[in-house]
Amino acid sequence: MGATREIETGAKLTPKFGADGLIPAIVQDAESGAVLMMAWMNDAALKHTLSEKKATFYSRSRGKMWVKGESSGHVMEVLEARIDCDQDVVLLRCKAHGPACHVGYQTCFYRAAAADGGLAFVEEKAFDPEKVYGK
Amino acid sequence: MGATREIETGAKLTPKFGADGLIPAIVQDAESGAVLMMAWMNDAALKHTLSEKKATFYSRSRGKMWVKGESSGHVMEVLEARIDCDQDVVLLRCKAHGPACHVGYQTCFYRAAAADGGLAFVEEKAFDPEKVYGK
Repeated sequence: MGATREIETGAKLTPKFGADGLIPAIVQDAESGAVLMMAWMNDAALKHTLSEKKATFYSRSRGKMWVKGESSGHVMEVLEARIDCDQDVVLLRCKAHGPACHVGYQTCFYRAAAADGGLAFVEEKAFDPEKVYGK
Repeated sequence: MGATREIETGAKLTPKFGADGLIPAIVQDAESGAVLMMAWMNDAALKHTLSEKKATFYSRSRGKMWVKGESSGHVMEVLEARIDCDQDVVLLRCKAHGPACHVGYQTCFYRAAAADGGLAFVEEKAFDPEKVYGK
């Protein structure tokens, strides 16, 4: 079969990293279905995620791999890792051991946008970041 | 307040587009909670999405804006558009007027990956792409 067909309907993981060597990874709470966050993975972070079953990313600002929850304890335990049709996006279905967002919400997506550019807060605060990360 | 604080806790949409002028946008079925797809938006696509309430993206391969469903009729009606803490990822909570994936599944994430690189099909086929898009 052709390359596109193999990527879309094959049974082999051939992740397509961007020019920067990274692939976006979405984290979803497997129980509630809530989308919790999106971050980036390099090849090593993806392999670590699949083998250790803990969501692991690559920080573009810090230039290194990090395991989600290594500071906060809010580990994302990976129950299932999916890849999309084009194999250029990862979806992690996780058991969340604590809130995902460093701002203090269960999910990073705590604000809804209106067409006029206004944002409304649509989630309840889950914890006080200063108590978890220190000041 | 500082720039980071304003981005994270402000009530004004200030989307952070990448160097390529694009921001990733996740589409979630608002009813089932299923993550359906991820695609990219430029500023015009984001504005169009917010004003018209139809998920609209920018195709990197075709170099133009496209409304999801313009070929298939499988429009994603936007019930709520959220932005993440850093304002660099969009989450669209949608009513799906048909399956999201051009391969024929409800979601683009129809395969689960194992640590050995094998992929298992975990979703049922929803339609025959040849009948919807033509051969």
